[in-house]
Amino acid sequence: MFVNPAEWHEICTKMFTTVGVPEEDAGLVADTALTADIRGVASHGSVRLPVYRERIQRGLINPTPSIRIVNDCPTLVHLDGDNGLAQVVDNKAAQIAAERANKYGVCCVATYNTNHMALLSHYGLKIAEQGLIAYIMCNTPPFVATMGAAEPVIGTNPICWCIPGKEFPIVLDMAISPARGKIKNAAAAGKPIPEGWALDKNGRPTTDAAAALEGMLLPIAGHKGYGIGVVVEVFSALLTGGKYGKNVTHPLDDYDHKPNCGNFIMALDPSKIMAEEDFVRRVDDYVQMVKSSKKSSPDADILFPGELEHRNELLVAERGLEISDETYQQYKSMVGQ
Amino acid sequence: MFVNPAEWHEICTKMFTTVGVPEEDAGLVADTALTADIRGVASHGSVRLPVYRERIQRGLINPTPSIRIVNDCPTLVHLDGDNGLAQVVDNKAAQIAAERANKYGVCCVATYNTNHMALLSHYGLKIAEQGLIAYIMCNTPPFVATMGAAEPVIGTNPICWCIPGKEFPIVLDMAISPARGKIKNAAAAGKPIPEGWALDKNGRPTTDAAAALEGMLLPIAGHKGYGIGVVVEVFSALLTGGKYGKNVTHPLDDYDHKPNCGNFIMALDPSKIMAEEDFVRRVDDYVQMVKSSKKSSPDADILFPGELEHRNELLVAERGLEISDETYQQYKSMVGQ
Ligand SMILES: NC(=O)c1ccc[n+]([C@@H]2O[C@H](COP(=O)([O-])OP(=O)(O)OC[C@H]3O[C@@H](n4cnc5c(N)ncnc54)[C@H](O)[C@@H]3O)[C@@H](O)[C@H]2O)c1
Ligand SMILES: NC(=O)c1ccc[n+]([C@@H]2O[C@H](COP(=O)([O-])OP(=O)(O)OC[C@H]3O[C@@H](n4cnc5c(N)ncnc54)[C@H](O)[C@@H]3O)[C@@H](O)[C@H]2O)c1
Repeated sequence: MFVNPAEWHEICTKMFTTVGVPEEDAGLVADTALTADIRGVASHGSVRLPVYRERIQRGLINPTPSIRIVNDCPTLVHLDGDNGLAQVVDNKAAQIAAERANKYGVCCVATYNTNHMALLSHYGLKIAEQGLIAYIMCNTPPFVATMGAAEPVIGTNPICWCIPGKEFPIVLDMAISPARGKIKNAAAAGKPIPEGWALDKNGRPTTDAAAALEGMLLPIAGHKGYGIGVVVEVFSALLTGGKYGKNVTHPLDDYDHKPNCGNFIMALDPSKIMAEEDFVRRVDDYVQMVKSSKKSSPDADILFPGELEHRNELLVAERGLEISDETYQQYKSMVGQ
Repeated sequence: MFVNPAEWHEICTKMFTTVGVPEEDAGLVADTALTADIRGVASHGSVRLPVYRERIQRGLINPTPSIRIVNDCPTLVHLDGDNGLAQVVDNKAAQIAAERANKYGVCCVATYNTNHMALLSHYGLKIAEQGLIAYIMCNTPPFVATMGAAEPVIGTNPICWCIPGKEFPIVLDMAISPARGKIKNAAAAGKPIPEGWALDKNGRPTTDAAAALEGMLLPIAGHKGYGIGVVVEVFSALLTGGKYGKNVTHPLDDYDHKPNCGNFIMALDPSKIMAEEDFVRRVDDYVQMVKSSKKSSPDADILFPGELEHRNELLVAERGLEISDETYQQYKSMVGQ
């Protein structure tokens, strides 16, 4: 079924006000989920909300955190999330980063004691809407094996940059391994996965999706993806005080631990270097230059990072948001409707 | 033959004092070349010096630039390199970034009007030596085709992070495509290159190294490497005022243009968040955790980013720097010895 995003937002918000999250914060959680749903990254959208809700109910997430600046330098800010929802903590972090980038040129916020961040670009887009460049990182539980290893030790460690654009914001938001979601889908459909994506639990290459889920993923591009994974872990966990490497517990599936997730958000103001419109004009010129490359086949579709998700937004604006009937009924009944 | 690095440094320095570069600046050029040689990245080391020298002689590089801060915010600095050697301009940029990171927590320097940067990690290591984290980017002439294209439009766009470590600094310094150097070596040896590295000049996949050099490279990991390449172009060129995309001219091979290279250097001070020794202890704990992963085979060598280059440094310290006889004689005769 297709629902109106505003209606869906209201239902998602109520899922959290009914478990003690203040109205405004509950709205932020719904915002993040909607951004993912609308941009076609459903795996990180409203599908995750029941778990967040249950974690609040079980006392694993603090619904009313006192988010606190621990150190203030003033352009490297250390933020204690007080075990709040990441959607609330990182909204604050993105706000601080943007305000101070406006003032000083650049600002980085290193956050710890937070929870599952979901879609990194949600926060990056808020920064880019203000004409700023965002750079965001977050580590995850260990799912990926390093080169030469037969054991997962680094996360899928997403990294994201958002840049103001003319027709659409430039967004690169990616994990350093194939997405686990894609492997889960293949396993559910009984389909194989490409070579080079994963090892089985004994560390042997496999194209069997189920064996891959029991085993471990491989980094993209070998030592290069592995290296980027290490960098993400350093910025988002070693630096912030968050858990790292094998000590990271799952922020969704593990009900025995609070995860103490860490993450890193930077904002940078290009208008300190050139007029905002000149920067956006240069970005647009570059987008056009790349997109008008000679094509490898007449029907090739040369995309720019962020364009696919922008197309999805346009589609949703036209026909509404596709939600399964069960999910719709389930969420409505959760909020007593 | 094996030479003493100090002797080689002296010869390399003289190559530049003899064409009008002030003694101190000539020493900086030699420093960069030596870092690359000693760390085993010979492709970006002293082998490039004769070209820099010739470009100075032909008036394409300014041997005595007035490097100037154009905008000062104070943590986003716009630097005009006055068409100086990148080794001089970026040394200044790294210095400014580090000084201000010490003061404010983080600082980014966006430079334009400079030349070939060579080894990004050289500048990053100078920052990491001071206990700071570095993040550096630089665009290059278009050698890489985007997804769906049959024409090179993005650079090999190196990106680099350096992080203080206990036994060795953590260094990731990589291009977003296979290295052209490796393809040149394969072509010289008449050997094929792996599938997925390159297209021929008609945009068809090729494993023929010579055809690849006439054609174009492919980004690592498809849309992910391409996306990182775009990000590097935005930070180092669109933002700085440097040339971008198809307009970039070769900073070494093209003797008709001054390249107006741009690049981006960030420094961040972890001691604003935790004591320096605590940060280094966390980094070391993580290095050990990853390196002690269960191995995929008994003789697997699990490396950490930067470790290979560190091993090379140790080797050179022991036995000297390997330089070909011709190069040694050629450089000595250039400086009249
Ligand atoms: N919070 C977490 O724990 C966590 C962990 C892993 C991933 N994630 C999220 O999962 C999402 C998906 O990650 P992924 O690695 O599967 O991403 P992906 O491979 O689907 O897409 C990565 C990026 O590439 C761009 N892109 C895709 N195709 C392109 C093309 N042909 N040309 C140019 N650009 C193109 C997209 O715009 C996107 O920015 C991300 O939003 C990430 O934040 C979150
Ligand atoms: N200035 C320019 O125009 C320009 C352009 C392109 C590349 N470069 C330089 O060329 C150099 C080589 O680039 P490349 O892409 O061929 O790099 P590469 O693939 O040789 O190495 C990339 C990085 O991976 C790390 N690494 C390698 N093997 C590893 C392993 N098994 N485990 C963990 N880490 C490992 C290395 O320490 C290094 O930091 C870089 O120094 C780059 O700055 C410069």
